[in-house]
Amino acid sequence: MAKLTSQAQDFSRWYNELVQQADLADHAPVRGCMIIKAYGYALWENMHSALDDMFKETGHQNVYFPLFIPESFMKKEAEHVEGFAPECAVVTHGGGKELEEPLYIRPTSETIIWDTYRTWIQSYRDLPLLYNQWANVVRWEMRTRLFLRTTEFLWQEGHTAHATKDEALEETRRMLEVYRTFSEEWMALPVLQGVKTESEKFAGAVDTYCIEAMMRDARALQAGTSHFLGQNFAKAFDVMFQDEDGGRQHVWATSWGVSTRLIGAMIMGHGDQKGLRLPPKLAPHQVVIVPIYKADDDKAKVLTAADAMVAELKDAGLRVKLDDRDNLRPGFKFNEWEMRGVPVRVELGPKDLEKEQVVIARRDTLEKEFIPRGALKGRAVALMDEIQRNLFDQAKAYRDENTHRVDTWEEFESHTKGDGGSGFLVAHWDGTAETEEKIKDMTKATIRCIPLDNPQEDGTCVLTGNPSKERVVFAKAY
Amino acid sequence: MAKLTSQAQDFSRWYNELVQQADLADHAPVRGCMIIKAYGYALWENMHSALDDMFKETGHQNVYFPLFIPESFMKKEAEHVEGFAPECAVVTHGGGKELEEPLYIRPTSETIIWDTYRTWIQSYRDLPLLYNQWANVVRWEMRTRLFLRTTEFLWQEGHTAHATKDEALEETRRMLEVYRTFSEEWMALPVLQGVKTESEKFAGAVDTYCIEAMMRDARALQAGTSHFLGQNFAKAFDVMFQDEDGGRQHVWATSWGVSTRLIGAMIMGHGDQKGLRLPPKLAPHQVVIVPIYKADDDKAKVLTAADAMVAELKDAGLRVKLDDRDNLRPGFKFNEWEMRGVPVRVELGPKDLEKEQVVIARRDTLEKEFIPRGALKGRAVALMDEIQRNLFDQAKAYRDENTHRVDTWEEFESHTKGDGGSGFLVAHWDGTAETEEKIKDMTKATIRCIPLDNPQEDGTCVLTGNPSKERVVFAKAY
Repeated sequence: MAKLTSQAQDFSRWYNELVQQADLADHAPVRGCMIIKAYGYALWENMHSALDDMFKETGHQNVYFPLFIPESFMKKEAEHVEGFAPECAVVTHGGGKELEEPLYIRPTSETIIWDTYRTWIQSYRDLPLLYNQWANVVRWEMRTRLFLRTTEFLWQEGHTAHATKDEALEETRRMLEVYRTFSEEWMALPVLQGVKTESEKFAGAVDTYCIEAMMRDARALQAGTSHFLGQNFAKAFDVMFQDEDGGRQHVWATSWGVSTRLIGAMIMGHGDQKGLRLPPKLAPHQVVIVPIYKADDDKAKVLTAADAMVAELKDAGLRVKLDDRDNLRPGFKFNEWEMRGVPVRVELGPKDLEKEQVVIARRDTLEKEFIPRGALKGRAVALMDEIQRNLFDQAKAYRDENTHRVDTWEEFESHTKGDGGSGFLVAHWDGTAETEEKIKDMTKATIRCIPLDNPQEDGTCVLTGNPSKERVVFAKAY
Repeated sequence: MAKLTSQAQDFSRWYNELVQQADLADHAPVRGCMIIKAYGYALWENMHSALDDMFKETGHQNVYFPLFIPESFMKKEAEHVEGFAPECAVVTHGGGKELEEPLYIRPTSETIIWDTYRTWIQSYRDLPLLYNQWANVVRWEMRTRLFLRTTEFLWQEGHTAHATKDEALEETRRMLEVYRTFSEEWMALPVLQGVKTESEKFAGAVDTYCIEAMMRDARALQAGTSHFLGQNFAKAFDVMFQDEDGGRQHVWATSWGVSTRLIGAMIMGHGDQKGLRLPPKLAPHQVVIVPIYKADDDKAKVLTAADAMVAELKDAGLRVKLDDRDNLRPGFKFNEWEMRGVPVRVELGPKDLEKEQVVIARRDTLEKEFIPRGALKGRAVALMDEIQRNLFDQAKAYRDENTHRVDTWEEFESHTKGDGGSGFLVAHWDGTAETEEKIKDMTKATIRCIPLDNPQEDGTCVLTGNPSKERVVFAKAY
């Protein structure tokens, strides 16, 4: 197992090597697409499962809409088509014939879903509709990167319909909160919650709410978005309902999504020089047991003891892997499971058996502990919480260290110069798209969000000196 | 809720009405595609979950390969391209430009997977590869039908690689057995296991194994296939491995899949004039509780009692739904849940409260029972097994009644004439594709399979009178 390039030296290369060496994904032979390998997919399954439970607990049901969107649908919402059509893949032939109307591969499904909602919604009694789908989508990206930006990716997209603006806004915020909870409590990544500026919002939304995480190169990564779509899609697709007073109104909408990009966020939010560090709640294997022996006689004894441990730990609800591969040395296995980020490694050899002890190695701190065999189960269970919390605390400390209140353009430039990350730059902005664009051109930093419940204070724009009522968060981002 | 067309009168119309009225799926505004509605998708989730567990128990892991397959890949395996290319959807434009090489939307993924396996397999130590993916696929069908045959559908496709022919054959049979178990023990549908003839096998396979179920119109439905691919794809994609003796050999392959078509099988295998009858193991709601009251005073009492029942039944591991919609009458609700096939309905009104009893209605037999309130939990749990078994027994009895040993062409024609189903016709065949084709042209009956462990007996072909060593199973099929 080759050593990873230093994060400090070339973070991007470190990332690419890690994705390969931890066996998460491969480049596909199709431009910009990825093959998600078994270990990467197991991570996605755990994320899927946790999110899906949260969606269901908040009253949502899953459905499935077609992959294909007729070209005419795409064109119905003006901003939406402008934003998405240029990056679509288009099917022009089917069954050996040219199609009368080209079909777009969904880049997102608002259009086909709202065309359908027209037939599902007649009266206020039909509302709200609280649906989600798990699906693949395609966006023709120019510069791709495994998990972070691929032509095809997997995601979930929620699409809800409401009778009132307030209810839709509440839903938008509720799902943002679900994403925050998932990010912080499952992925162990602290996030900022906020609203996008006009230039950064979803094509077709009134407001885009987002969560923003910080990677270990001090770059920002948008980890999820929840859109308040107003009545835009209802108007474009003529979706009206009869209210309790017999009047007819357009329906209010939200949509929200997270994708396999989150796997990239977890890699870059926690990974170190030895590889991945996975939060226990999402790790495919929470504990790996590596038996150590030379003589055949030892082997039988050690493996019998290891099997008993597997049974005991599984019984305690842990996901346990016994690495009993015969052709690899323990040291190689240690490196491999560290690369793959397994939270806890248990080592067990003939001497440990004699002493009735086991060796535990934590992936987050790389510390080793010798504990009595009888204490294994309790310690392993407790470590899951400790490691989960420690990864979060470390990520939060890193983010806080790299969050700066910036009041002058000189400071702003000192944080954004060079190729590295900028951290979060909390600065005043004059509220114009023009200034936002200028700052982006000059520094590559974009406004990540206007934080929720943002304190109001008088100040002056960091670039133009024009008056400002609140600070926003800038960063170089993925 | 409108009454369904009689099954005896027009089974196909009955099916279409039922899919709509049970709220399972809708026709999409894209030709031949479907929208899987929440109730239909919940069924698919339960099927997915049960199958996925079985795949994992047999050592498989999930992965994800791209939606797009370069045209050149499709052309590498001669039979495969001939079978699939004519029914592919083709992407010719992406990101606003014409592509240099058209991309096919996967109709199945052997080609892109075997292109990748070339890079994953070097030595016998890399084998076997036991992978599966859950994905959407597209086949440009001319005549479509919700669930049964749609342009896009959801499925799983397993793709395994092995060092020896025997191991690949064993895997092919193992997965057929998984499908049989799933079909019989989860879907409550008895199936025949067998091998397809040359004309009916998968394009690119050496042998296609299948399970065949019988619908309640005496038509056959292929419910799953497991292909022994020999070395065909390894040769087409140049996938070789170094064996233990240092020699180089082509890898052996299998692939196997089931799809959302199984939802169609469940509908047509169990449904009756009142709608769906779902096997308890897969039903989204296993028990529905319908409270009955007129006065507000009763309402509070009945709902409190109903809530306690929900808690108690959930605690017993059942999926329970309380139908507390205020704007609908109990009778309407009864019909609706019967249409949706919920195995057990519990009715509870003020009189039942007084008598400390509940009314239980079974969907499979439509029988009602009055039982003491205290016996509810035990009875509900027991009914899950009883109904599961009864649905299987009924389906098996129907199949057995509609399975005929046929020895003359006259008999064969009497079973196949008209528009209805034929049942399974167990008859001698001379083994030639020519005769098979003739029989199909004359009667619409195809050879569903040559059963596994087929008894050998001397006989003469039902059409040509030529000698035959075994009987095969003919039927008109979906």
